[in-house]
Amino acid sequence: MNPTHSCILLRHPPSVSAWASTVGKKEGDGPMGFCFDIVESDSHFGKESWEQAESEMQRRTMQQLLLAADCKPSDLDAVFAGDLINQCTSSTFGLRHLEIPFFGIYGACSTMAEGLLLASLCVDSGYLSRAAVLTSSHFSSAERQFRFPLSYGAQRTPNAQWTCTASGAALLERSDQPPYILGVCGGIVRDYGITDANNMGAAMAPAAADTILRYLNATGTRPSDYDMIVTGDLGLVGSKLLCKLTAAQGFDLTKNHKDCGVMMFDNSTQDTHAGGSGCGCSASILCGYFLPKLQSGEIRNLLFAATGALLSPMLCQQGESIPAVCHLVHFAHDCGKEHGV
Amino acid sequence: MNPTHSCILLRHPPSVSAWASTVGKKEGDGPMGFCFDIVESDSHFGKESWEQAESEMQRRTMQQLLLAADCKPSDLDAVFAGDLINQCTSSTFGLRHLEIPFFGIYGACSTMAEGLLLASLCVDSGYLSRAAVLTSSHFSSAERQFRFPLSYGAQRTPNAQWTCTASGAALLERSDQPPYILGVCGGIVRDYGITDANNMGAAMAPAAADTILRYLNATGTRPSDYDMIVTGDLGLVGSKLLCKLTAAQGFDLTKNHKDCGVMMFDNSTQDTHAGGSGCGCSASILCGYFLPKLQSGEIRNLLFAATGALLSPMLCQQGESIPAVCHLVHFAHDCGKEHGV
Repeated sequence: MNPTHSCILLRHPPSVSAWASTVGKKEGDGPMGFCFDIVESDSHFGKESWEQAESEMQRRTMQQLLLAADCKPSDLDAVFAGDLINQCTSSTFGLRHLEIPFFGIYGACSTMAEGLLLASLCVDSGYLSRAAVLTSSHFSSAERQFRFPLSYGAQRTPNAQWTCTASGAALLERSDQPPYILGVCGGIVRDYGITDANNMGAAMAPAAADTILRYLNATGTRPSDYDMIVTGDLGLVGSKLLCKLTAAQGFDLTKNHKDCGVMMFDNSTQDTHAGGSGCGCSASILCGYFLPKLQSGEIRNLLFAATGALLSPMLCQQGESIPAVCHLVHFAHDCGKEHGV
Repeated sequence: MNPTHSCILLRHPPSVSAWASTVGKKEGDGPMGFCFDIVESDSHFGKESWEQAESEMQRRTMQQLLLAADCKPSDLDAVFAGDLINQCTSSTFGLRHLEIPFFGIYGACSTMAEGLLLASLCVDSGYLSRAAVLTSSHFSSAERQFRFPLSYGAQRTPNAQWTCTASGAALLERSDQPPYILGVCGGIVRDYGITDANNMGAAMAPAAADTILRYLNATGTRPSDYDMIVTGDLGLVGSKLLCKLTAAQGFDLTKNHKDCGVMMFDNSTQDTHAGGSGCGCSASILCGYFLPKLQSGEIRNLLFAATGALLSPMLCQQGESIPAVCHLVHFAHDCGKEHGV
């Protein structure tokens, strides 16, 4: 395999011109609660089912994005959106009234990075002027689809992660305002034979290591060239494995690695075991926490590597292992060629 | 809404340099049976479950594509793939051993057109040199996921469509060999309030009309400017509705409209009711039948508008209506500006 393929440096780095984030009560009570635009205490979001609640969360996040961007829906050329729910209905039902050209994507918890990657290529090439990227997850819709109905009161294993009720959205366009997307790296599906659906971190860590190392090699950079290397939601278990896997290749991530799944909750008081997960976990922390810091220049250079476990309950029941993928987006405060890139 | 937005004419129209198609026995017995690369009489494709069978079908179709293109997997910069099965596992499990950067997409039965659209933008802009697009559907995996396990022997309504066991794959790159992709048009989600999950044609026809009319208006062309206007799988019911909806806007599609769902089966002998459906239906007929004719010049100019019903069984059970989307790809034998485009 070509070790650098699908690592792309953008010719006209697009700006992230606006962003929005929504979370549920538990996420709002956690250590990151201060940074989100909307914290909704009603986990039903005023709707009658968990699936409708998640769609409503996406709808509100998109409304908040349009408000932040001072845009009408018709000002957008496209939206790239997806979620964990079967047939991605949280996205299609949440956005169906907006009349924006819609590209459905599926990358499990890597969806936000996949959308940013594809949208940035389309904006960079000038084919789309303004493109939004949106994703979500909801604890209750995910639990009953992937595990058990909530009312069963099922026990969770120590390695299990907690699907966040959260949504994040970003708007990409060409402008001279930071932050910018300088480069991207498409994920290759990796399957190390993990069959435990309660240990997503272990299933996803090899994909994260692969994509991050391909980008570092392609750009001739080291981890120390970045203020932060942020993974999506490897959680406590996967984060340790990632650092081991990259160390074995001579790259020390321990000094500037952060994981959105670890950041989202305080396990000592919130009983979330290995950390947060779900498409909305990394999307909401990117949009609520990291993008403002990249805009202000407090963070100047950041790799965002969101990982997805590409499992289905059906295939797990058939004894299959869990493939995973990780897409990477390189954000920077400056639209330059600094840091050796 | 901007009536032309997301209609894009490509600056360096990419070529479709290779293609491949696989179908099951029933599709092979139908009127299009002569045109496919592989007709597999074992509906299990040698595997133990329907889901594994569909993954194996995608794997074989990709192998056939690589053979046709005389390529190794490492020669491809990316693959855009998706399917109907929850979490798109037919694609991820079918492709996980190939080590090609993977972009998961979900557009229900519009997936082939969505993938061609996104891949053509990335190849046109030079960011990807060679990109594959792949999709599939399988009658038996779809029936048990969306309707009933086969062993129930459930009755089918007259408006119901038959999910095809089929897969299609295409390879895009810059070259001077026909056929070319001249333009694309991203779909807007349309929901006309249809709640009958056995009448997909009616749910999808408004989306098809919307996208086709936006492309005709954006390019200042008429239906007669194209040798054919091909829809994905509206079936008999949806095709009639499409022609009515476009006629009401002053565009007569009846003379050169074809629908892959109608083409796939002979209802008089195969008992398929309103016609074929599934991601693989339009993908396999595009790759088995239309692309060779576009290559030879027998067809010079064709609009491929694949429609997807964005339903989930869960949301249907909750009484929701069915949103739909249609993405369009404009193929031509000549890489020119003929036909007013």
